[in-house]
Amino acid sequence: MGKVLMKGNEVIAEAAVHAGCKYYFGYPITPQSELVAYMAKRLPEVGGLFLQAESEVAAINMVYGAASAGVRVMTSSSSPGVSLKQEGISYLVGAELPAVIINVMRGGPGLGSIQPSQSDYFQATKGGGHGDYQIPVFAPATLQEIVDLMQDAFDIADRYRTPVYILGDGMLGQMMEPVEFTERKAAELPPKDWATTGTRGDGGPKITNSLRLDPDDLEKHNNHLQEKYSKIKENEVRFENYLTEDADYIVVAYGTVSRIAKNAIKKAREKGIKVGMIRPISLWPFPEKPFYETRENVKAYLTVEMSAGQMVEDVRLAVNGYKPVHFYGRTGGMVPSQEDILAEIIKMAGGDQ
Amino acid sequence: MGKVLMKGNEVIAEAAVHAGCKYYFGYPITPQSELVAYMAKRLPEVGGLFLQAESEVAAINMVYGAASAGVRVMTSSSSPGVSLKQEGISYLVGAELPAVIINVMRGGPGLGSIQPSQSDYFQATKGGGHGDYQIPVFAPATLQEIVDLMQDAFDIADRYRTPVYILGDGMLGQMMEPVEFTERKAAELPPKDWATTGTRGDGGPKITNSLRLDPDDLEKHNNHLQEKYSKIKENEVRFENYLTEDADYIVVAYGTVSRIAKNAIKKAREKGIKVGMIRPISLWPFPEKPFYETRENVKAYLTVEMSAGQMVEDVRLAVNGYKPVHFYGRTGGMVPSQEDILAEIIKMAGGDQ
Amino acid sequence: MGKVLMKGNEVIAEAAVHAGCKYYFGYPITPQSELVAYMAKRLPEVGGLFLQAESEVAAINMVYGAASAGVRVMTSSSSPGVSLKQEGISYLVGAELPAVIINVMRGGPGLGSIQPSQSDYFQATKGGGHGDYQIPVFAPATLQEIVDLMQDAFDIADRYRTPVYILGDGMLGQMMEPVEFTERKAAELPPKDWATTGTRGDGGPKITNSLRLDPDDLEKHNNHLQEKYSKIKENEVRFENYLTEDADYIVVAYGTVSRIAKNAIKKAREKGIKVGMIRPISLWPFPEKPFYETRENVKAYLTVEMSAGQMVEDVRLAVNGYKPVHFYGRTGGMVPSQEDILAEIIKMAGGDQ
Amino acid sequence: MGKVLMKGNEVIAEAAVHAGCKYYFGYPITPQSELVAYMAKRLPEVGGLFLQAESEVAAINMVYGAASAGVRVMTSSSSPGVSLKQEGISYLVGAELPAVIINVMRGGPGLGSIQPSQSDYFQATKGGGHGDYQIPVFAPATLQEIVDLMQDAFDIADRYRTPVYILGDGMLGQMMEPVEFTERKAAELPPKDWATTGTRGDGGPKITNSLRLDPDDLEKHNNHLQEKYSKIKENEVRFENYLTEDADYIVVAYGTVSRIAKNAIKKAREKGIKVGMIRPISLWPFPEKPFYETRENVKAYLTVEMSAGQMVEDVRLAVNGYKPVHFYGRTGGMVPSQEDILAEIIKMAGGDQ
Repeated sequence: MGKVLMKGNEVIAEAAVHAGCKYYFGYPITPQSELVAYMAKRLPEVGGLFLQAESEVAAINMVYGAASAGVRVMTSSSSPGVSLKQEGISYLVGAELPAVIINVMRGGPGLGSIQPSQSDYFQATKGGGHGDYQIPVFAPATLQEIVDLMQDAFDIADRYRTPVYILGDGMLGQMMEPVEFTERKAAELPPKDWATTGTRGDGGPKITNSLRLDPDDLEKHNNHLQEKYSKIKENEVRFENYLTEDADYIVVAYGTVSRIAKNAIKKAREKGIKVGMIRPISLWPFPEKPFYETRENVKAYLTVEMSAGQMVEDVRLAVNGYKPVHFYGRTGGMVPSQEDILAEIIKMAGGDQ
Repeated sequence: MGKVLMKGNEVIAEAAVHAGCKYYFGYPITPQSELVAYMAKRLPEVGGLFLQAESEVAAINMVYGAASAGVRVMTSSSSPGVSLKQEGISYLVGAELPAVIINVMRGGPGLGSIQPSQSDYFQATKGGGHGDYQIPVFAPATLQEIVDLMQDAFDIADRYRTPVYILGDGMLGQMMEPVEFTERKAAELPPKDWATTGTRGDGGPKITNSLRLDPDDLEKHNNHLQEKYSKIKENEVRFENYLTEDADYIVVAYGTVSRIAKNAIKKAREKGIKVGMIRPISLWPFPEKPFYETRENVKAYLTVEMSAGQMVEDVRLAVNGYKPVHFYGRTGGMVPSQEDILAEIIKMAGGDQ
Repeated sequence: MGKVLMKGNEVIAEAAVHAGCKYYFGYPITPQSELVAYMAKRLPEVGGLFLQAESEVAAINMVYGAASAGVRVMTSSSSPGVSLKQEGISYLVGAELPAVIINVMRGGPGLGSIQPSQSDYFQATKGGGHGDYQIPVFAPATLQEIVDLMQDAFDIADRYRTPVYILGDGMLGQMMEPVEFTERKAAELPPKDWATTGTRGDGGPKITNSLRLDPDDLEKHNNHLQEKYSKIKENEVRFENYLTEDADYIVVAYGTVSRIAKNAIKKAREKGIKVGMIRPISLWPFPEKPFYETRENVKAYLTVEMSAGQMVEDVRLAVNGYKPVHFYGRTGGMVPSQEDILAEIIKMAGGDQ
Repeated sequence: MGKVLMKGNEVIAEAAVHAGCKYYFGYPITPQSELVAYMAKRLPEVGGLFLQAESEVAAINMVYGAASAGVRVMTSSSSPGVSLKQEGISYLVGAELPAVIINVMRGGPGLGSIQPSQSDYFQATKGGGHGDYQIPVFAPATLQEIVDLMQDAFDIADRYRTPVYILGDGMLGQMMEPVEFTERKAAELPPKDWATTGTRGDGGPKITNSLRLDPDDLEKHNNHLQEKYSKIKENEVRFENYLTEDADYIVVAYGTVSRIAKNAIKKAREKGIKVGMIRPISLWPFPEKPFYETRENVKAYLTVEMSAGQMVEDVRLAVNGYKPVHFYGRTGGMVPSQEDILAEIIKMAGGDQ
């Protein structure tokens, strides 16, 4: 099919369709409206269903229903809309239902702005909803990476029976880049014999439920979830190392910010500062290994986020006191510039080269 | 008035009334139903208003309205109900509105059980809703402490213009203890000249809003919030040190778990293990100082939670690699016993004394 | 207190306060927004409560709650908003709860226009909700009549334990006229010993409910309701006869249309046509008596409505074939002019005088 | 395909599928739950969509959306649930959208009972929602008649661009009878060139809307609706005459009550009373003609309903004073027995034969 030039929000939608997603439930909110509009038009073409629900609360509960029926289903929103879905997301986890949830983050808190942000990192990685749970969270940095991660996201959702987040930001949603939708071999996935599609003589009625009134039973279920999380940590960590081999300093950034950071790193290298980057692609499970491998040798880390400082906590946990961890952030829809980041690198490197 | 024997959920309610709370909006959920019932009866007696809303989403937005009018207002729920309020909580933060939010935590995720839990620590302290925000979170361990913290909670809410969480668990809500409602001198608080109660010639119309479409404006607002958070970190940290002065080992626990831990510590001391406890009372801002003061000298820390491990991250961040941080947790409504904790202390101390 | 010049929507609100209404739940909609705004400001001054609910569905259910507690409570809306309340209104009837419901009618169907209309006559008088029920419906024609009928409405609601409609239209809501709020002796009303305000040793718990699963029980309840309706028909019919004694022709009109019709009648009398008017003030129970008394002697009736023809059915039922019943109506927010009505009178009188 | 033995609620569902209905939105309520369950299973088999919405309000608005897209869509409920849909039904009318709405009536008012009833006649025929509108209402008396009327209902909905009611009762929904689903020639229907399925170069964007702020415009629209209603009155009246040719007395009954009445009429004929029956099949437009044709010759009419007396008003309007119109009704889920009706016939005939 070759490369096509598309807008980020449309790439998210088309990538989902390529990954076999046939059901979408959501409610429109800027800056991801093109995604919703694309799905409304596209899903009927592949025999699927688009439904704009009464509210975000309704939408996430429809996702629960569709996921229970064993189909590939997605919802999307932006920050305030995702907050409304927190109860439903916790229900998906409790009932072990696969689904993909897109958050095209905007500046907060509250209604905030409609400009790009990364300030929902904590909500996605630490459990915005209640209860002991984790959800795999992927943060693509380019439109092509969206295509590749989306297939993974649906596969991981099905393999581990879990919701999966794709975390983008307004910039990613609005930018245009050429992308290629390559067909890849379908993953080998366990049969969905738990789906509530009828008994067909294979045992009693199927139920998807998150209510476990007996605490002993619920703790067993939680232990089962923790074992699942261990397996995800083993198998599904994603990250990119960029010029880290000889690095004295390491920038940590994800999503679109990592692209700006790369340019700043190039400029810093031109000035003789040996700086590299660790780019977490999976935000949970957080890639600890590249930090374990570098924390002995580098002099300091600099986390750059479009937030007041959220991922930096995971960086500090991974570095565990070995070296200083600095932070630079912009909020409210403001995007760190190449110059900003370069200045922070220079400051970290102890002078104004 | 002397001491009266009361149930935890009722103490929360009466303490709020003593703190000047006259408005309550909520929706019932086990295990905090007695709180709702108490408020329904009590608030009209003090000229206040109780309203059971259509849903948790409606309730938190009514809290927004009442807080905008400058009155002391509270809502309460248990885990799934609190998840439904995440959007509204982020709106309260964005509009800088004072309110007190009670979460009597139950086992999760999803509907989970109705037994006690501490698994919403992350949601409360890291921002369950979207956007860069923090909310002061207090976790009382006794019914008397509820009374004292509630007055603080309402004062802090008003002083800093912020929602404040009180985090309890089902055990705390159901236990009975004698409590005393002492009158204390009213705190000196800034006038609520921002409240939307009419202009009265003091300038243009008052508006409470969290929408700031200009990212530059929103970033300024976020910087203002961060400055506020710095002040709260300076002034509002609460914790208890228990036998830490000579301790080789330190248990970290909050809420009802800390009471069980205390007994385990006594037993361990009888066995010659010099163990103490740091009990965070404010979960955010997290009390880092007692860790800074002990991390050089103690040999290890043990965090005990009714969760799969949440506060332990803040402990590890405060200890910052100086010493090992162990974890012991029960989930789903299961409560760690004194024997369990003692066994963990002995294990940490390197043997079976 | 003397006469004051006020707007219709405000008169409705103030009249309700004078009638002892202390609770209001609603959701704003044009053309009755001034009513909502007035209540928001006024009720706290008399120790009452105003609450803007999440939706019309929520509002009518809050009315159910307040009415259950035995207080005087009101809601108001305009046509589409009243449709949303139909389930709740049927619940009020089933549980025999007193409340006053204002409908300031606008043009329909659907969202329609925001101009005046009388097209919800059927909804109000025939049971817009499900089940066999009737609700007393009053239609004032002047602002002073609102004041007088409002006191009756609350008294009738309490006396018979029933919701009561006040039906206005956009014109009535927007017009200004001098009104006087005279104090009148409180009606003797039965005690509200059914209210769910606690048992106080006077028997078991009080419950307000509309569920009666045993059909025999439900039929008994329906028979009880029908007996109540018979009493209301006996005692609460309201109408005005205008120049009917010598009339050859009779115009039937209610609300603001009756005021225009009066002028047309004066003009017709000047032309020598002996025409009078029956003005139903209670739309249910419909005033049949003035028709029984005139149908032998008059030659024809002309019903004029701001609708496609609704009250005309009740006129035809009352006339019962004795004489022709003509109809003239305007819809969609268009108001019949004096000239229009005069032309219809002349046509009915058989020529062009 | 031959005759199959099925339950009434399932027949409604299967008949809709046979009539080309592919979309269903609803919310379950007794006594029509089998209908919902059947649709959930059946629609996916024909490439259609079943969706259980968040509430009845959500469901009817989804019907609006699907109807706008030009597909055949249905919703169903029982009395309280239908009341919740009144706003949405008025919107369908205003926007001239075709849809079929099933009401399997239960005893009311309020939650009432779950036993059969006919007490929503007024709601269906007089406009339960606001605004000047009428909806074709069909009331089948046998399961085979459901099959036949359903095809008509969808055709009429499309031909006139209007919602159409099918009014059943709990008895009809629960009874089992053999039915045959015969294929019949598709009706010639106008193309849905108004559907919002894209412009395709045939003019500007398509919009379905019920808001017409200009009253002159709205009145024109209402006149257009009234013309449509005239055509429906001309073409779509349905009724059955049973032994009316020589009748001295006529029973009027619809739906399941008419079946019991038929047996009572046979018994009365055995006793020498010449009694027949008019069975309205379309409740709106109400069949006036059989009354015009009989009111000169018969001695009296007896309307029998499972209500406190609703259709009897339309009977009285059609008889227009020519002859007495008696009424016998049971309410709350109680069903008139053959003996009851026979006794009423004998009473009407002036003695106890």
